[in-house]
Amino acid sequence: MSVKASPHSLRVLQTDSALYNKCLYLRMLVTESTLRTFTKNIFLSIGCSDEHATLATDVLIKADMRGIDSHGVARLMGYVRLWEKQRINTKPNIQIVYETPTTATVDGDAGLGLVVAPFAMQIAIEKARQYGSGWVAIRNSNHFGIAGYHALMAVEKDMIGYAMTNASPLVAPTFSNERMLGTNPMCYAFPAGKYPPVVVDMATSAAANGKLEIAQRSGKQVPEGWIQDEQGNYTTDPHALKNRGSLLPLGSDREHGSHKGFGLSAVVDILSGVLSGANYGPWVPPFVSFLEPPTDPVGAGIGHFVGAMRVDGFRPADEFKSNMDNWIARFKSASPINPDQKVIIPGEPELEAEIYRKQNGIPLVDAVVKDLNELAGKLKVSPLAS
Amino acid sequence: MSVKASPHSLRVLQTDSALYNKCLYLRMLVTESTLRTFTKNIFLSIGCSDEHATLATDVLIKADMRGIDSHGVARLMGYVRLWEKQRINTKPNIQIVYETPTTATVDGDAGLGLVVAPFAMQIAIEKARQYGSGWVAIRNSNHFGIAGYHALMAVEKDMIGYAMTNASPLVAPTFSNERMLGTNPMCYAFPAGKYPPVVVDMATSAAANGKLEIAQRSGKQVPEGWIQDEQGNYTTDPHALKNRGSLLPLGSDREHGSHKGFGLSAVVDILSGVLSGANYGPWVPPFVSFLEPPTDPVGAGIGHFVGAMRVDGFRPADEFKSNMDNWIARFKSASPINPDQKVIIPGEPELEAEIYRKQNGIPLVDAVVKDLNELAGKLKVSPLAS
Repeated sequence: MSVKASPHSLRVLQTDSALYNKCLYLRMLVTESTLRTFTKNIFLSIGCSDEHATLATDVLIKADMRGIDSHGVARLMGYVRLWEKQRINTKPNIQIVYETPTTATVDGDAGLGLVVAPFAMQIAIEKARQYGSGWVAIRNSNHFGIAGYHALMAVEKDMIGYAMTNASPLVAPTFSNERMLGTNPMCYAFPAGKYPPVVVDMATSAAANGKLEIAQRSGKQVPEGWIQDEQGNYTTDPHALKNRGSLLPLGSDREHGSHKGFGLSAVVDILSGVLSGANYGPWVPPFVSFLEPPTDPVGAGIGHFVGAMRVDGFRPADEFKSNMDNWIARFKSASPINPDQKVIIPGEPELEAEIYRKQNGIPLVDAVVKDLNELAGKLKVSPLAS
Repeated sequence: MSVKASPHSLRVLQTDSALYNKCLYLRMLVTESTLRTFTKNIFLSIGCSDEHATLATDVLIKADMRGIDSHGVARLMGYVRLWEKQRINTKPNIQIVYETPTTATVDGDAGLGLVVAPFAMQIAIEKARQYGSGWVAIRNSNHFGIAGYHALMAVEKDMIGYAMTNASPLVAPTFSNERMLGTNPMCYAFPAGKYPPVVVDMATSAAANGKLEIAQRSGKQVPEGWIQDEQGNYTTDPHALKNRGSLLPLGSDREHGSHKGFGLSAVVDILSGVLSGANYGPWVPPFVSFLEPPTDPVGAGIGHFVGAMRVDGFRPADEFKSNMDNWIARFKSASPINPDQKVIIPGEPELEAEIYRKQNGIPLVDAVVKDLNELAGKLKVSPLAS
């Protein structure tokens, strides 16, 4: 089922330059249900319970549906390799280790972050239901997929959702050439009325690592301000990151506010790592299995931080939602510089991708199909048709 | 007492390029206690109670002490002008209008934000003391000074502090040339052990308005990526903002993540404005008295959002602080690109300024001394010696 991107799909895919570039490598379109079945079988085959396999699949597929391809099934091989190295425990005993009425720390027992983070978010939501707000720091976890999945769990309950995670070090603080921080994403999600939720889900680096990988594959240069080389000189060579270079914080340089991007990334690292008792900064274990974790850990696994606040803890929910609708409508109508490019409400492109892909399928690139079918062969799971 | 900046003061002042530039206009150095007495007398003379005048002074002087001169006594004239226009109520009845165990909405009764925000933060801290965390949205308020003051109130109680505020529209969202958002600062403050607190206190725009004003006064161009003109073209002319231009969000352009700066600013606007029932987006009333507020308000005054979380709601406080110390020490020792410029921990320059100015006095520029003494004349308060 090898396809060329149709003009219509191109229009949608252009909403994300990463996706657009990937069209060069488009191998196949798969339906959501096909990809779900395949993914769940992989998780079952590495020892997840049916409940955990279903949940982990849901988190992963949500990324593919929302067009955040770098965080979907493209990562499946990575999780399996960490399991092979016994760095991911597929039968974790996830538990609360510290608690007040509205706060808690959860130990993920080295489980999949895809399972640990929703567990923690359920606790936050229940605390918010009872007391107005709930906050959970998580240690001893692994990569949790897209932050937006977890934050949106709260939105379904008319709550504001927060989710963030630290990650293996790729980003240098302002004035340094040392990789000290992950791309450390933060997500805030707000329910609205007639409009879809506003979802701000962003890496705190100038560019996400996935965008560099695309440039590497296509042999293109990247804009100045995304990365620096080993000596700390700005470079447009996307391969510099592999050669001991580093990503730059949001803001790119001091003059344009890179100290703010560094500060935001520090907030994510402190809430996710220091507050929970996970590793932080340069001690965060790498996602890739071919790199060993630091031998002098300062905590357990990687850390997340999630939270929920009841909207009606502040004002009646219908009032809030009606004001959110007005906020969204006003920002959508903000005067555009170019009449063909209106202001984009945070979360809007992801929802558009979700609607489009539900109807038209999820595009997978060559390298991912190859990985997934290799995995299927190894784990004796039915491959994707190709 | 007109002075030239000494080499020693220059060294300190260079930690902030804004301050450094201001050296050109340095008029006098005043002691903290002189400036406190003067400022309190001004607040008393416009009708504040002794308690409110003391508190408002404390917030304002904290900005001057921490080197954030744009938010200190330089704004005193602005507050008085808004009071003259009856847009600031110096005898407010500040009250909770909505509440759960850990959330509340406060109506500031058009009071000084300098007084309203600490009132709200006390509520957040008390809720956190009882339940682990506390969150307060504030409406019907005015400019609240530096966010750091409010967040640091929580740090003194071994809590993590949050403070943010919306502000009059100067910033255009990505793809727009319309001023829709304020510089909407967010602040997160974390207690540490032997080191001072980590305080991330940042405007969500690429550059703060104060930096433009300095460039305007000195006739200098600003870097590309700070502002755009009325048509949405990047410009280096600092006067473009006054000619219907706009500030750019953190990230500066789409390629460097301006949609993230826009997203962060939206988070601040929604939490401060929409959640509280204050004005939001382009409806936020201007700080300057010569511009009238919109005639079709969507809420009451400007909005803030503050919060506190007990550190020991997640892990024992001494463990957290000891890990914070390790975090700080490790980041301070991150490999510097230039050996003379080490990584700066967020909050460090402000604390250095505070220590220096406590000993050496607060430098005031010509224009500010002139404003303050004009104010003193009008309100029959003793002037600053000059």
